[in-house]
Amino acid sequence: MANDQQVADDQELDSLDALVSLCKRRGYIFQSSEIYGGLNGFWDYGPLGVELKNNVFDFWWDAVVRQREDVVGYDASIIMHPKVWEASGHLGNFYDMMVDCTECKRRYRTDHLMRDLGISELPKECPNCGGELSEPREFGLMFETFVGATKDSQSVAYLRPETAQAIFVNFRNVQMSTRMKVPFGIAQRGKAFRNEVTPRNFTFRSREFEQMEMEFFVHESEERQWFDYWREARMQWYLGLGIREERLRFREHDADELAHYARYTTDVEYQFPFGWQELEGICNRGSFDLSMHNKHSGKDQAYFDEARQEKYVPSVVEISAGLDRTVLTVLVDAFAVEQINGEERTVLRLAPHIAPRQVAVFPLSKKLGEQARKLADELQRRFNVLYDEQGSIGKRYRREDEVGTPFCVTFDFNSLDDGRATVRDRDTMEQERVALDALAEYLADKLAPR
Amino acid sequence: MANDQQVADDQELDSLDALVSLCKRRGYIFQSSEIYGGLNGFWDYGPLGVELKNNVFDFWWDAVVRQREDVVGYDASIIMHPKVWEASGHLGNFYDMMVDCTECKRRYRTDHLMRDLGISELPKECPNCGGELSEPREFGLMFETFVGATKDSQSVAYLRPETAQAIFVNFRNVQMSTRMKVPFGIAQRGKAFRNEVTPRNFTFRSREFEQMEMEFFVHESEERQWFDYWREARMQWYLGLGIREERLRFREHDADELAHYARYTTDVEYQFPFGWQELEGICNRGSFDLSMHNKHSGKDQAYFDEARQEKYVPSVVEISAGLDRTVLTVLVDAFAVEQINGEERTVLRLAPHIAPRQVAVFPLSKKLGEQARKLADELQRRFNVLYDEQGSIGKRYRREDEVGTPFCVTFDFNSLDDGRATVRDRDTMEQERVALDALAEYLADKLAPR
Repeated sequence: MANDQQVADDQELDSLDALVSLCKRRGYIFQSSEIYGGLNGFWDYGPLGVELKNNVFDFWWDAVVRQREDVVGYDASIIMHPKVWEASGHLGNFYDMMVDCTECKRRYRTDHLMRDLGISELPKECPNCGGELSEPREFGLMFETFVGATKDSQSVAYLRPETAQAIFVNFRNVQMSTRMKVPFGIAQRGKAFRNEVTPRNFTFRSREFEQMEMEFFVHESEERQWFDYWREARMQWYLGLGIREERLRFREHDADELAHYARYTTDVEYQFPFGWQELEGICNRGSFDLSMHNKHSGKDQAYFDEARQEKYVPSVVEISAGLDRTVLTVLVDAFAVEQINGEERTVLRLAPHIAPRQVAVFPLSKKLGEQARKLADELQRRFNVLYDEQGSIGKRYRREDEVGTPFCVTFDFNSLDDGRATVRDRDTMEQERVALDALAEYLADKLAPR
Repeated sequence: MANDQQVADDQELDSLDALVSLCKRRGYIFQSSEIYGGLNGFWDYGPLGVELKNNVFDFWWDAVVRQREDVVGYDASIIMHPKVWEASGHLGNFYDMMVDCTECKRRYRTDHLMRDLGISELPKECPNCGGELSEPREFGLMFETFVGATKDSQSVAYLRPETAQAIFVNFRNVQMSTRMKVPFGIAQRGKAFRNEVTPRNFTFRSREFEQMEMEFFVHESEERQWFDYWREARMQWYLGLGIREERLRFREHDADELAHYARYTTDVEYQFPFGWQELEGICNRGSFDLSMHNKHSGKDQAYFDEARQEKYVPSVVEISAGLDRTVLTVLVDAFAVEQINGEERTVLRLAPHIAPRQVAVFPLSKKLGEQARKLADELQRRFNVLYDEQGSIGKRYRREDEVGTPFCVTFDFNSLDDGRATVRDRDTMEQERVALDALAEYLADKLAPR
């Protein structure tokens, strides 16, 4: 990977430094293969990160699949038949233009370079060192591999660059096996891979990432109504994650930036320290994808609509979100460093229902360890619980604030008499005495989605 | 893929035919990219399959991570630094020997061929057509790709053939960020890839699959005790999935079949229609992996044990299960075709707590649709529910039996008067009248793990 490491850093990362450091120190996110020097554009989720990521995903699956009668799930293989990518247009169209500096060896995506410099023509000189820039060339974004015993054009295959195509090629299988009627959707979570020219901004633009996509199949006459419906539903979902409203916005794509398959697209954007960036695209893809697969596979993708007495290839309204991006967003949005009575406090104000650790249980003194541990064990059946008896209560609170634990429960000497424990709220830092036998319900209520 | 399709079929598949057909017809499992002729060794999970797979995984995560204080989770990138595979021994050792028939083009793994023929020397003739077999050659099992703008030895990378190595290379990061003390474990679910010579037996041996692995780090003196502990715990877990005890067994590896990293290994095996096969390996890997990564990375992998006042590289007891294999096992084990009063009934006797659809709600007549739908909507908040008003009640029961729905609830005209509905049990086919306001609790109790 030596030839690729030189583009690892980016000055935009600086403003994320404190969060990146916390993520590593406390087990949210690590660089992939760190003991071997890392791998540019690849990240791992540590013990707290994997729980946060799964909580965010569960919240999505619940809203988009579980609670709906008109959406079903799917989980496709990452490697698909290469003809899928021929039909989708990825084999012909999915590349970025890049230039290299012949002096300092920095690599740039030409579109990003022009955008960052605010110019409309490609510069000749490197903005970093003034060196000469190479001629622009294509940088294919799909990772290639070979399936079977030979390595040739017959055996080439690709790591999927998006999960959506797996849904399109299985539209008929799913529709027929479930007897779903249009309008209905198919949703999927899964890994996707793009050989990005310049991975950057922590997990925001990486080479291996997870998508949460749902393709909603509709009659052409209902494209706009469903597009508007999902646009609104998706914004509400981000608000339901506890993300600040003022840092979220819609952005409509201009005609000249639309993808080849798109009739119109709206992005949900978040205001990161490195600027407004896309979290999700809501896109009217029309019947482009099903029609292309119809043509390339020779398999009829048309659907007979009994209510309309009409046979047609459905249109698609797509909602396409990045799971890693959403996790990064809730971390960025939750991260704060405060001054409390002259002391610094780092806190992750994660919405309680997605916090990876929900409750911490402390004995005030190690002498109360037995009782406090029993309480922790009971709560463990319903919540993600840490039992901790190391250090002063103040220090234990700070450690939990830093990882975003919404509630700390302290068992003290009075608890032996009054059967109550002190529950401390991460955000208000207020404390409340709660009866031990009412504690689980109390916490369940506070930890439920709002 | 043309050169690879000819080995797609296997006579052993025959005995799975009825299940494979059900899986496709009802949306459990599809061939990948089916409209393009499929891709040998790759499978997709349909709407019911993805729910079943996630339920099995959740049951694992709950048992191995959530309910334990001594195991934490992890989620690593699939593509890691290539040095990981140098250190682990995969780059040098991870291949199978294969031969091709020069006549019928069939491909065989040499070890499978000798085992199936019950001979100890490689035959010269193809058992299928009598044609001449080629000289044996190595078949590398890792999928290769290239990261970055060039394709050369500097940029080569691999799709991981197992998830375990990601845990080993992050042992120190996880231990330090969580302050866990040995003995403790790190668990992970994730995709792995092996370019198998002969994928076969439906999803049993595929080229892309999901593993559930947990590496438990222990002091060398406690290897055997923890090995025995996990061996027993894992068998209990399979029984908790409702799998028939008489189709499960342990099998100790003989000394001559042990992997290069293993001190000793026990497999959990299941009696499939195609024979006893491995579901999971429980393995004492000693300190092989951490020591190799210590050596290759130059990063100290030793741990200071405060209780023992001793610094050492921990030993590892591994539990390595296949998620796809477990899903296949519960399907095979649950699948039955019965004669009921002269009629044939196909039923999936899935344990209720992993069934993808938990409850179906039927109105006896479409006239009761409004009330029955309201009931379905209420139950939907807690369970995976289907509302169905198409066809006779008998037909609706049969459809649900076939996909394994444990409970069907019928709202009839009496329900309007007595506020009760009929709950029908999939396995006993017995029916019980249950009060509507007690229905959710009744079902929750029946659907809980035993």
